[in-house]
Amino acid sequence: METEQGHPLDAAIALEPAEAHQYRGQTSVDYANMVGPFGGVIAATLLNGAMQHPERLGDPLSLTVHYAAPIADGGFDVRARPMRTNRSTQHWLIELTQAGAVAAFATAVFATRRDTWTSTELRFPAPPAAETVPVAPAHPRAAWTRRYEMRFVTGALGETEANREPDSLTQVWMRDQPARALDYPALASLCDAFFPRIFVRRPAWVPVGTVALTTLFHADAAQLAAQGTQPVLGVARAGHFGNGFFDQSAEIWSGDGKLLAVSQQVVYFKE
Amino acid sequence: METEQGHPLDAAIALEPAEAHQYRGQTSVDYANMVGPFGGVIAATLLNGAMQHPERLGDPLSLTVHYAAPIADGGFDVRARPMRTNRSTQHWLIELTQAGAVAAFATAVFATRRDTWTSTELRFPAPPAAETVPVAPAHPRAAWTRRYEMRFVTGALGETEANREPDSLTQVWMRDQPARALDYPALASLCDAFFPRIFVRRPAWVPVGTVALTTLFHADAAQLAAQGTQPVLGVARAGHFGNGFFDQSAEIWSGDGKLLAVSQQVVYFKE
Repeated sequence: METEQGHPLDAAIALEPAEAHQYRGQTSVDYANMVGPFGGVIAATLLNGAMQHPERLGDPLSLTVHYAAPIADGGFDVRARPMRTNRSTQHWLIELTQAGAVAAFATAVFATRRDTWTSTELRFPAPPAAETVPVAPAHPRAAWTRRYEMRFVTGALGETEANREPDSLTQVWMRDQPARALDYPALASLCDAFFPRIFVRRPAWVPVGTVALTTLFHADAAQLAAQGTQPVLGVARAGHFGNGFFDQSAEIWSGDGKLLAVSQQVVYFKE
Repeated sequence: METEQGHPLDAAIALEPAEAHQYRGQTSVDYANMVGPFGGVIAATLLNGAMQHPERLGDPLSLTVHYAAPIADGGFDVRARPMRTNRSTQHWLIELTQAGAVAAFATAVFATRRDTWTSTELRFPAPPAAETVPVAPAHPRAAWTRRYEMRFVTGALGETEANREPDSLTQVWMRDQPARALDYPALASLCDAFFPRIFVRRPAWVPVGTVALTTLFHADAAQLAAQGTQPVLGVARAGHFGNGFFDQSAEIWSGDGKLLAVSQQVVYFKE
């Protein structure tokens, strides 16, 4: 999958500058989902609109993505603009449009980080080493799953009554396939690479879709550089299912127990 | 505090319609914080811009607020517009400006809910009944704390070395003061009514400020109506502190153990 443009993730999130604040991009068959593109790559693409903007200050601190409508295969426009720039933080609005209609949009905070007191309260689950856990096969209905190496420690898809789980907790070693050094867009995408929690709880397939997703980036640039191409541990669980929606919260950890990001999303499901 | 306009929260979040998508509001001394207004009331005010918009579809499902700059005491403009309206979901952008500059903005999803399979995975902590827990005094430096009745089950402010906590977990019974029937704006505000987690961990006062906050509303309109003026149980904890920022995650429960909302915020701190 190494192409002349480099890694398929870089090709998928590439944006070509047009006029001020405007870019052109296009969907990638490598990251296709059942309908339209994989949401993680949409998140990474929107983040990329701010990442490569000439007025960018610092690195990503938070990203909220709204999946407002289906995205058709093909080209799209991205408009990224700073809403407010302060001394050490910058707030962004980034919109993805097709044929003039908003299909997705994001808000983000970028910030300059500095050394301070540090403490992690969430607990690293200390799973078995990645190389001791077998790689799961890609999902036949979702092309994007071929672009991630996934090794499930616990909470794989509950595809039959026999392996139906009592809760939706998943712990999974993950990395880009082929391996790629971790950066903020790749981390943003990984935060959406968990299967919908309802499929861990219930074997039946039903239509689902992420409505909105927020990721908080704890890793600074040095931590991402130290991570390189090593697998990260993803942890995901649901809080509540009801009224046609559920929430999923996720954590992404380095192999040595550093919390790289936390993420929360609300997902539509049809019963 | 009952005024001719009714409850002080209603007065604080009131918006007067101006031209299409535009409203005028003003800050309230009742909900003043150390600098500018209490962030919970800003969240509720922005949500209110969509709540009372003639094109609104359904009820709030998620709300992300960016606290982009200090808000000065006095008047402000709010612009609320639907970015995309689907059959059962609607995505919003709501901006608060002063003197033409964006000081805060929010995105939101509104949705029509319907009965489906339901399951709660988060655990209700089964605290002692609210009436058995003493009411904490308001904080002398933050006027808004007089507008909430707070009864700390665990994790009050760690104001001295002696009561410094080993982690930042707080469980607190909360309600509007004076009592007020719960609705979506009041619930949005409650999600920001936890003291910054760093003050639970460390007795030293340092400058702090919420940068961005996302709330997912699990309660439907019937659950909110059933809640009435009863206290809710708030649970808050931090995931990680470092590089000048920390995250806080929160849950709001009804007294009988129904999960009404979950929320996540990223907070700046100066060491």
